[in-house]
Parts: sequence; C-alpha cells; structure tokens
Amino acid sequence: MQPRIQALYEYMNDQSMDALLVTLPAHIFYLTGFRSEPHERFLGLVLVKGESPFLLVPAIDLEAAQAAANHIPHIHTHSDTDNPYEVLSKLLPRTIGKFGLEKSHLTVSRFEALTAACGAREYADIDEALRAMRVIKSTEEIIVMRRAVRMIEDVLQAGIAHVRPGVSELDLVAELDYRMKKLGADGPSFDTMVLAGEKSALPHGIPGDRKVQNGELLLFDLGVYLDGYASDITRTFAVGDIDDKLKDIYETVLAANRKAIEAVRPGVTLASLDRAARDTIASRGYGEYFMHRLGHGLGLDVHEYPSVHGQNEERLAAGMAFTIEPGVYVAGLGGVRIEDDVIVTEDGVEVLTSFPKELTVIG
Amino acid sequence: MQPRIQALYEYMNDQSMDALLVTLPAHIFYLTGFRSEPHERFLGLVLVKGESPFLLVPAIDLEAAQAAANHIPHIHTHSDTDNPYEVLSKLLPRTIGKFGLEKSHLTVSRFEALTAACGAREYADIDEALRAMRVIKSTEEIIVMRRAVRMIEDVLQAGIAHVRPGVSELDLVAELDYRMKKLGADGPSFDTMVLAGEKSALPHGIPGDRKVQNGELLLFDLGVYLDGYASDITRTFAVGDIDDKLKDIYETVLAANRKAIEAVRPGVTLASLDRAARDTIASRGYGEYFMHRLGHGLGLDVHEYPSVHGQNEERLAAGMAFTIEPGVYVAGLGGVRIEDDVIVTEDGVEVLTSFPKELTVIG
Repeated sequence: MQPRIQALYEYMNDQSMDALLVTLPAHIFYLTGFRSEPHERFLGLVLVKGESPFLLVPAIDLEAAQAAANHIPHIHTHSDTDNPYEVLSKLLPRTIGKFGLEKSHLTVSRFEALTAACGAREYADIDEALRAMRVIKSTEEIIVMRRAVRMIEDVLQAGIAHVRPGVSELDLVAELDYRMKKLGADGPSFDTMVLAGEKSALPHGIPGDRKVQNGELLLFDLGVYLDGYASDITRTFAVGDIDDKLKDIYETVLAANRKAIEAVRPGVTLASLDRAARDTIASRGYGEYFMHRLGHGLGLDVHEYPSVHGQNEERLAAGMAFTIEPGVYVAGLGGVRIEDDVIVTEDGVEVLTSFPKELTVIG
Repeated sequence: MQPRIQALYEYMNDQSMDALLVTLPAHIFYLTGFRSEPHERFLGLVLVKGESPFLLVPAIDLEAAQAAANHIPHIHTHSDTDNPYEVLSKLLPRTIGKFGLEKSHLTVSRFEALTAACGAREYADIDEALRAMRVIKSTEEIIVMRRAVRMIEDVLQAGIAHVRPGVSELDLVAELDYRMKKLGADGPSFDTMVLAGEKSALPHGIPGDRKVQNGELLLFDLGVYLDGYASDITRTFAVGDIDDKLKDIYETVLAANRKAIEAVRPGVTLASLDRAARDTIASRGYGEYFMHRLGHGLGLDVHEYPSVHGQNEERLAAGMAFTIEPGVYVAGLGGVRIEDDVIVTEDGVEVLTSFPKELTVIG
C-alpha cells in the first residue's frame, strides 16, 4: 500500500476511528495523486477500518481519477442529480462509531447532509493529522518546490525587464502571468500583484491602471503552482531614484527579513521568528506599520500550515516550509515587503528563493 | 441605507433574527462593495437588530475596506494574533436569540469557534435568503455581465487566430490569459481550458503539452471576471477536416444547446431545460455520453445558484442568469461542448453570448 495511505490507516487505528473521510482537494492529491477542483460537487477519499480505500468522485471525473489515482482500488461515482451523501452511505458500514472528518474544510451544511445520511456515534477532526503529515516535506516534495521557486524567479526576472515609466500595473501582471503559462506552470498560485507608488502600501491591493512613475516604489508579489506545489515571492524595487525615507523603509524591511531567516533552525518557535522581524522593525520606529504576520506555510497550498505569527509557540522541525515576508506600509507614501520561501533543514535553513534583495533600481 | 442592506434587515426582522453574520466574500461584495479574498483570515459583515451594520476585517485590509464599503458606518479590525471570534463577541450584544449564518460557507471548525465565543440560543441558515437576493440580477448587474461576455468573446476570437497544427494546449491557454489581462479583466473566472483531440472528451481535463493536430476537435472553455461578474463560454472547433462521426456529435450537441435555449422563459422549471437538451442527445443515441448537468448559475461567482439539472423543479424568473452547456464525450475519440450564457427576460431569453456556434474549421 502507498505509504501515505498506510500512515493514515495507522492514525485511524491509533484514534480508534472506524471510518475517515478526506474532502480537501489538496489532501486528496497528496494521498492519491488525483488532482481535481470539484467546485460545489462532492469529492471524497474514504478509508474504512479493515477495508481497502475508495474514492467517490463526480461521474465526469471518473476517467481522470482512474488515470491519476492508480493505487486506489475502487473509484465510485455520483451524478449531478444524486445526493452524494446517500451514495456514500451505501458504501459505508451500517454502523460507524467514530468517524474522522476535516472540520476545517467541511461546511456546516455539508456536515448536516453527511450526518443525516451517514450517522455515526461520534465525529472527530482529522485536520491536525493531515496537516502534520503534510507539514514535513519529503525530499521529493522539496525538489518540486525548488523548481516552483526557480520558475517564479525566472518569471520575475523576465517581468521586471518590462518596467518603465508609463507601463501600468495590469500590463505587468499580464506579462508575468503569460510568462508563467509559457514556462509550463499549472497556473499562478494566487492573483499576481503589482502595485505602484502609494498603492504599494496596500498589503492586499488590487493591480489596476495605475502607471509606474519615476521616484516610486514598485512591489511584485507572485507565485506559481508547478506539479501541484506553490512558490511565492515578493520583491520591491525602486523605479528611478527614490527619496531617503523610502530607502530607510526598504533597509528596515530587509534587515527584518534577514534577521528572521538567520533565526530559522529546528527547535526554535515560529513565534520567535515573527518577533525577530518585528523587533527589528520596531527598533527603527516602524513597528505600527507592520500589521500582518511574518509568514505562512507553503506546499500544496500557497497558504497552509504552519502560520508564522507571534503567538504560534510550535517549534520548527526539519522539512517545514514557509514564507518569511516582513513589510512596512505607510499609507499615502508606499510600502515595502520582501518575501522569501524557506525550508527548515537538520541544522538551519535552506532559502529556496535566491532573487537579489538589495535595493535595486529598475525602469 | 443602501437597499440591499435594507432588504437584509427586513429579512432578519421577518425571521425574528437578532443578529446575522455574512462571511462569503462574494456576498460581502454584493452587500458592501468591498471585494476581498481573506484566505484563512476572518472577514465578516454583521447586522444586529436595531444597530447599524459593521464589517470586521483583517487589520491589513482596513484601508481598502474603508475606501470600498463607504456606506458601512463602522469597520472594525482584528490582527493575525487575535482570535477574531473573541473580537466579534465584544461587538455583539451580550445575549443573542436567533443568529443567522451561512451554513454553506462556514466550516464546522469555524462554527465551533464562533459558537464558543458568541453563543446564541439558535443558529439559522441565511444561505437561501442571500442566494434569493443574488439570483435575480438587476439591470445594472446585467450591463456588467454583458461586458464580461463581450470581453471573453473578444479573447476567444483573438485566441483562435493562434491555432495551427503544432501549437500546444498550454500555448493557447497562455495567449488567452494574456489577452484577458490586457483587456482589463479582473482575472480568469476559472482555469482556462483548451483541450485537443481525445483530451476534449475529458470534461475536467487539464491543458498540457498536447499539440493541436489536423483532423481533430479543439475545445475552449474560458471566462473572465470583470468588475466582479463572471462570464463563461465554451466553443468546440474542428482543426482541418474532421470525420463524420465527430461532425455528428457536433450537430447533436448544437441541436441540444438550441433546444434548451428555446425552452427558456419565466415559469418553466430548470429541470425542463436539462430534459430538453438531454432528450435531444438521447434521441440521437448519445445519451450515455452526456454525464453532467446542463448548466449553472452565473453572476458574482462563476458557479452559483441556480443549478440547471434534471431534478431542479424551481421555476425560472426574469433576471435569472445561467449557462447552457450540453456536451457529448466519447472516451478516446473526443468531446464537444457548446456553452452559452443566458438571462431570463420578461417574455423569454436574452442570450448574452453571440459567438458563432455552427461547426467552424480553424487552424
């Protein structure tokens, strides 16, 4: 049996679960190799104690599931007019004691429909277990992630060659997205962000017709999915000459980024990384302008476990992958964010991103 | 007060609810004008009986929310280290009788966190009410949707000019996505699909390095979001000369598409549209090869209410918007799908899509 599925059976056994339903598409890909976004349709991987695993997929996905999930012995289907929970109930044992579910993915209404059709004595959350499996990346996964990072850096390099005063944020987004597809990405790992001038101070700003101008900051935040795995990088550039205040903000963020990366090694807490960056920024007088967490886990999802924030006292372990992305955002003036992707190694850190971080003038 | 918010207060009153929490980003945009994808962060619009509405947003989104949601009097924030449900509980009345929530959006774990912090006597589902508001498009919304359709047709027109034997599915996807951005789309409304030859028989196939060849079908399924609204079109083309079997499949699907569109008018059921298409396909011997529903609602989401399938006995009403997309998929050979976007009018149908549907040879 495939080792990840085997591990899940062992977890079920440890937890005295009789059945377990996985519904998050990324988890299903991780466990079966079948990648699908079923939208509002039902897609589930089911493990029942003492039986072989099966997938329940929308009828239209049968062929694709058979091709991809070749180690899953049974693939059942439901049509758009079926109640998938009733189809599921016929495939499950008559009585279930403890039923494992993803409470962070299942909606309240799906849970109500499921429990109406497939009653169990007790419902347990399996999120932690699946996150714990995914949080430590294997050598094979790290190899794919390196490729995803390499690709997004190639995209960024090609994209900044198009920067000149007068080009719009959206023109640059289009160039970057085009390059991603041409290089064979599965797609962007989130909406590509290019923000010019005062718009760079919006951590969730939306690119528009705002044109690049001399003397301003230009922020790029972009990533790709490649063979299922996400990369995510932010770099902020100077277009022409920028004033000393903006340079000071830049150097502050860069120092925070480096401080946090230096702190990465097995055994320290995630919170300590956030604090390392936050203290650096605060010591230079910009504490109030860094109003988000330091970073987020990275893998099959562009935002996944673990969250790198000041209250997360979980300790780093070799194989964890996450972003480090301090920022300083001064409304009306501009913002700087510098984001790297890192992997915790046995004795420190591997920084996957290698794009230069020193303040660079482009355009 | 803004009329949509006003309507929601009236609904609350009718249902004897004391408070109501909206969390789906598209609903929040519909009600406030603030568009944001908060990922795992908490974003909510809250209405409390007798009080003015407020938004609770991630701290990093404060500026953007203030700019967009200018008729919402109070915008509160939470930081990444707060428990947003505890922040919320301080903004809610001490005791709540009936609390309206979106059970189709709220996950089981969020619901558990919410109910732990903000206990109420009873939790009611507000999905239906919000769907019912959104399902009937206003004149203003239809104007935006027409523009979203016009844009995707321009994209498709430009894209097929690049078709020639030897070009890959991914090359075409890149051209199409690039064109969307250049024309100013918010983004694709789903992953752009270009499938060549036998791959066109996969309703959820993923574009890859497969190259376009003469004598084959080439299927395009694509859409954009424009000013928040989605378009969605599918056309299938012949690359060079195709054999009679493929032509027969094409004419079958085209007949089904037309039959279903002819049936659209207020008062008939959604199921009857699905049946009109399905019967047409079955009468020509391809019944088993049309294994998905006829269509889906379209608006702020590319897949929204209503679902156009054979068991949906809800009746059409003027202002409803949905897709009509019959298909026939013969494994190993190829598939055809022809998808239009329609609006139910007072006396029939407005077909938003106007891209030619007769079998067209390209490349």
